[in-house]
Amino acid sequence: MQPGSILGITNFSEPRGSSPKTSLGKRGIFFRTKEFTITYEITATDGNARLGQIHTQKGIINTPAFIPVGTNAAVKAMNQDELKGLGAEVILSNTYHLYLRPGHEIIKELGGLHKFMNWHGPILTDSGGFQVFSLSPLREINEDGVTFRSHLDGSTNFLTPELVMEIQDALGSDIAMAFDECTPYPATREYTLNSLQLTTKWAKRCKEFMKARKCESAEVNQQAEAPALPNLRTSELPSLFGIVQGGVYKDLRKQSAEEIIELDFDGYALGGLSVGEPKELMYEVVDYTTPLLPQDKPRYLMGIGDLLDVLEAVSAGIDMFDCVMPTRNARNGTLFASIGRISIKREEFKADTGPLDPNCECYTCKNYSRAYLRHLFLNKEILSMRLNTLHNLHFYLNFFRKMREAIENSAFDNFKEEQSLILQNNFV
Amino acid sequence: MQPGSILGITNFSEPRGSSPKTSLGKRGIFFRTKEFTITYEITATDGNARLGQIHTQKGIINTPAFIPVGTNAAVKAMNQDELKGLGAEVILSNTYHLYLRPGHEIIKELGGLHKFMNWHGPILTDSGGFQVFSLSPLREINEDGVTFRSHLDGSTNFLTPELVMEIQDALGSDIAMAFDECTPYPATREYTLNSLQLTTKWAKRCKEFMKARKCESAEVNQQAEAPALPNLRTSELPSLFGIVQGGVYKDLRKQSAEEIIELDFDGYALGGLSVGEPKELMYEVVDYTTPLLPQDKPRYLMGIGDLLDVLEAVSAGIDMFDCVMPTRNARNGTLFASIGRISIKREEFKADTGPLDPNCECYTCKNYSRAYLRHLFLNKEILSMRLNTLHNLHFYLNFFRKMREAIENSAFDNFKEEQSLILQNNFV
Repeated sequence: MQPGSILGITNFSEPRGSSPKTSLGKRGIFFRTKEFTITYEITATDGNARLGQIHTQKGIINTPAFIPVGTNAAVKAMNQDELKGLGAEVILSNTYHLYLRPGHEIIKELGGLHKFMNWHGPILTDSGGFQVFSLSPLREINEDGVTFRSHLDGSTNFLTPELVMEIQDALGSDIAMAFDECTPYPATREYTLNSLQLTTKWAKRCKEFMKARKCESAEVNQQAEAPALPNLRTSELPSLFGIVQGGVYKDLRKQSAEEIIELDFDGYALGGLSVGEPKELMYEVVDYTTPLLPQDKPRYLMGIGDLLDVLEAVSAGIDMFDCVMPTRNARNGTLFASIGRISIKREEFKADTGPLDPNCECYTCKNYSRAYLRHLFLNKEILSMRLNTLHNLHFYLNFFRKMREAIENSAFDNFKEEQSLILQNNFV
Repeated sequence: MQPGSILGITNFSEPRGSSPKTSLGKRGIFFRTKEFTITYEITATDGNARLGQIHTQKGIINTPAFIPVGTNAAVKAMNQDELKGLGAEVILSNTYHLYLRPGHEIIKELGGLHKFMNWHGPILTDSGGFQVFSLSPLREINEDGVTFRSHLDGSTNFLTPELVMEIQDALGSDIAMAFDECTPYPATREYTLNSLQLTTKWAKRCKEFMKARKCESAEVNQQAEAPALPNLRTSELPSLFGIVQGGVYKDLRKQSAEEIIELDFDGYALGGLSVGEPKELMYEVVDYTTPLLPQDKPRYLMGIGDLLDVLEAVSAGIDMFDCVMPTRNARNGTLFASIGRISIKREEFKADTGPLDPNCECYTCKNYSRAYLRHLFLNKEILSMRLNTLHNLHFYLNFFRKMREAIENSAFDNFKEEQSLILQNNFV
């Protein structure tokens, strides 16, 4: 790692010789810096588990990292200051959703996603591949791209690798994902092979699109009508992660990994997992495939979030996770605690003055009782979703902090064993 | 006003000779102080408009006051720190709702409503009369009370004046409302007369119930399982407001006012307004009835909230208002601004980087653009309801602050004229 990269000062290729400070002109003119890439540094290992830091221009992401999901440019029920307060270092937003509404061009016009949603830390955007697979009532794949029907208004849309790059660049993403086909489960060997080959072709086109985008300078008008809003949009190109597919076939995972690594991405993701296959099979694929990925790049297990799965995947050397589990479960009244999982609606909490989790330092546990949380949940109060989400995200982010600490102290195996027992416990 | 009453030190009748500090024993034992009453002080007048302060044991309420509505022990979409930050000095909770769920006895067991919901300022509770009238699918009134069917589970319930007092006492309300019949509109003279007479009888029973409740001491166990939660429940009896009915018949309003005033309450409310009658008729009734109420007690116009109505009512000498308008409108995307009312969903805000209201200092306007607020609203994001509610409550509470300032500066007529023009303006 080069000195100074923590501050995102190195790795600018344009303009040469100028520091980021001076590249931002007095009137809001700044230069597109074409080849800024994130850097990744491993600071400790414990078995295959890795402790590291991803340095982005928007800040550092400590790994293993949990990425809260903000599908529609908002992590459901949270505001951006709360996310920051919880220690979230990166959030995920969905290409598919933002393309359909409000549209990436609108967000670009508004100064990018960071400014739009008032989140100034790193943002990872997915490729939309998974949402096309899971949300669209119609999906037709051909070599060129995917035709799908919007789940919002039924309109027909066509996504290509190039458009997906265009969208993620317009959003101002810090970490963009290559467009892939999320291979379903079950799928025949033949289907899986064709699918991974398509993913490779698309990954190549994504990479080429990003390379081809010429250096340019962009003038961003400081919009007079919005004097109070910070204008922090910068226009460096996103870094780009490739996605390894191959279903549950080890040799196909290997083939996909080799083809994708060959293209040289800034990081690598495992896709097409947690799509219905048995857990043991997922673990096998993760255990087998993760070591095939480059040591010196971040490794991302997409859409995974059950903490038992996280422990397994970190054991295998995975660095990044995203999942709606803490936020969605919160809204459904399922809360994570140091003693196990709690269903807050249960009768026994009716007159329980204790905090949700006596060992928790979050705002919810410090200020409200189980009885009140149950009452809010039964009444479908918005505050219920807020307090539950805040707690669950705190639990997740804290779990990851403790896990990083364990790796640093060469105590990951103990941590894994101890936490696995608790996580299997459905307390109430 | 007696010196020291700001701190709630005077007006304790029990235990004589002991200060509130020493009445709270080391082991959480404290005495029920039977006859603490709120005090009301007028600090300025401008025409009939009054500037004042209601002193309660939980804090001062500056009047004219707006009372945010927290139906189910939560102001929808807000947490209690936000309410405090917005400058809310009192909130309203609903007897009807809390009686049905979770039940007043549970809340009492949990240490009262303040502790339950973690709001330590004054709480006003309504009598449930209006909700029985508006929410229940079945309602049968007789001399003794009201039989109604729960809108939650269809169960049949029977509310009497005594039970309504019991509930509000159990909740630990600071300002309780007498049980009344909210006379519908239209109603014949005969119905209205019978109804107001029933309201008077019930008011008498409420008053007697509160009087009869004997001095007693209560031991509140400091619950070991909730060490982190503040134990601020005090058990003084609520102060009690009477409600004047009489529909749109001036002579009946006069009769009701006289009968209710005769019973000597801590404050007086006008009920049975804004139930479908024309605005002009409501204004007439308010103009006519308000001056009949005692000068030295707070006057409360129940359920009123449209700010044009507020201006008229303050002109007539009303001091307190509650309404779901700012919170409900917020959730429906209608936002108040210094330039008029704004429907945030409109197409023209799609790429509008400006704040909702350039003259507003609230968190929403300081941090988010119209384009983002529109986007959140269209996506039904919980954050939309939060940011909109925060803004609308800020607008309301700020409107009341400016109105109080205007009264203090003998400029209420100007304020009224100027604001009326803006409030009639549907900007977009």
